[in-house]
Amino acid sequence: MAPSTLLLSLDLLGILVFAVAGALSAVQHDLDVFGVFVLAGVTAVGGGLIRDAVLGATPAAALADWRYLAVTAVAAGVVFFVHPTVAKLGRPLLVLDALGLGLFATAGTQKALRFGLGPLGAIALGVLTAVGGGMVRDVLLGEVPAVLHREVYAIAALLGSVVVVATDAANVRPFVGAIVGTSLCFVVRVVARLRGWSAPTPRKVQP
Amino acid sequence: MAPSTLLLSLDLLGILVFAVAGALSAVQHDLDVFGVFVLAGVTAVGGGLIRDAVLGATPAAALADWRYLAVTAVAAGVVFFVHPTVAKLGRPLLVLDALGLGLFATAGTQKALRFGLGPLGAIALGVLTAVGGGMVRDVLLGEVPAVLHREVYAIAALLGSVVVVATDAANVRPFVGAIVGTSLCFVVRVVARLRGWSAPTPRKVQP
Amino acid sequence: MAPSTLLLSLDLLGILVFAVAGALSAVQHDLDVFGVFVLAGVTAVGGGLIRDAVLGATPAAALADWRYLAVTAVAAGVVFFVHPTVAKLGRPLLVLDALGLGLFATAGTQKALRFGLGPLGAIALGVLTAVGGGMVRDVLLGEVPAVLHREVYAIAALLGSVVVVATDAANVRPFVGAIVGTSLCFVVRVVARLRGWSAPTPRKVQP
Repeated sequence: MAPSTLLLSLDLLGILVFAVAGALSAVQHDLDVFGVFVLAGVTAVGGGLIRDAVLGATPAAALADWRYLAVTAVAAGVVFFVHPTVAKLGRPLLVLDALGLGLFATAGTQKALRFGLGPLGAIALGVLTAVGGGMVRDVLLGEVPAVLHREVYAIAALLGSVVVVATDAANVRPFVGAIVGTSLCFVVRVVARLRGWSAPTPRKVQP
Repeated sequence: MAPSTLLLSLDLLGILVFAVAGALSAVQHDLDVFGVFVLAGVTAVGGGLIRDAVLGATPAAALADWRYLAVTAVAAGVVFFVHPTVAKLGRPLLVLDALGLGLFATAGTQKALRFGLGPLGAIALGVLTAVGGGMVRDVLLGEVPAVLHREVYAIAALLGSVVVVATDAANVRPFVGAIVGTSLCFVVRVVARLRGWSAPTPRKVQP
Repeated sequence: MAPSTLLLSLDLLGILVFAVAGALSAVQHDLDVFGVFVLAGVTAVGGGLIRDAVLGATPAAALADWRYLAVTAVAAGVVFFVHPTVAKLGRPLLVLDALGLGLFATAGTQKALRFGLGPLGAIALGVLTAVGGGMVRDVLLGEVPAVLHREVYAIAALLGSVVVVATDAANVRPFVGAIVGTSLCFVVRVVARLRGWSAPTPRKVQP
């Protein structure tokens, strides 16, 4: 496969995994069929939609390329009908989710760089691409987004984004930067999950 | 009236009804005068604002044409002062809301098509236009959006959007497609509401 | 200082204060380090991001100019480490927050006018710039936005926006309009806070 075909395939794989995760959380919260499709869509393409809207990359990629919505819809439909089976795939889903996280973070950062943003803006948008959809999903479910107070998730995405910005500044080829950044994010996320690491919290004040 | 004048009038009627519904929910949740105006505005133009932002149709129509905000503000002001009377209009409000739903779904779908989106993207944006504002309102009120787990509401909008996309593909005139799509959405919504239909939910897992 | 330098400095001061407020609320809600940075960012630049997305002023200013995110990140970092000290600055924070409110309202209104919006749209976007970030923050924390049901906050921003639109219509120089609008917003907010004024609410219905 050419690099661009590989990247698109990986991107759609990320969409697929995030859509499955969103659809499963809809099932767990007793939503109806529309809720299953909306939460699959929000989780899979929500971060990218926000990124494209503030970047001016419109119409947003997730709408302009029909494959994104098609993959999302298929994932939602499958989960709607066979969710007990899908929900049992704990370990594989975790691994794929970590891969999706890394792919979204690096792809979002690279898109922001292509639109002329500086390092800080590109890192912020990369992380937003990776965790924004999940945050909107949690808000729709009436919960404080898990990423704000639990586990090492966003920090893994942040590391991936930083790698992309650093390799870009060093004139490394984007394809290489994406692979290194995605890999770092993936490893950090999986190791943190398996070992139960948490992100640091502010120290408590004695009452 | 010319078709364009008729469409604008119907669009403003949809804005009016959605603004009234948003303002009423603000009153029911004990918000203050600013909350009444914000919820009226979010419900009436929120879906369209999100649509225009991800589509790149900026400045968004609801801001560029003063009549949208004017109608919204008038509706909010009236509800603020005479809400007990307005709240009693149960049946007429339901009918008008179903009309607004259909108008927003078809208008949003057609706008997405004009901006070059394919069928899937246009349907997604049509439904978002119709139900997005209400979802944001529910989130601001701290509730899981009703449209995700109750009643046949979004599905009616979805049917209207599908009609628009199908008639567009068949080279039917947009005006005709809008009328057929809006009518179908309207009828499905009203009948579903009166008969108490619910959207299908995923089957439960035996514990 | 030239007027433009002064305005930028004031704008960054507003960002700083709003970021501190957002970071403090993250600490109070037991979020982790990522949550502290996200809530600082959302509160400080969230309103401006939404404004720029619906206006088509992309890439959004808060991303295109690295100083906005840099100030936000520094504020979040400082609060993360020394939040007990920062939290004690009640009165100075209130005063600075009222100043930020006025600066955001007037700057947002002027930007909307430059993009060709009419009076109603410009006022709506000015208020959104000023209170939108705080609303998103409250939603992320699972709360109904305080601005919708408590205190005179948005109304102060509204007054500032109206002054900008009115002075613009009267061909007053933008710099003067911004100063008058910001001052009015600032005074109304501080006085309302110190005297415990609330915005009017709809009258209650006797059950």
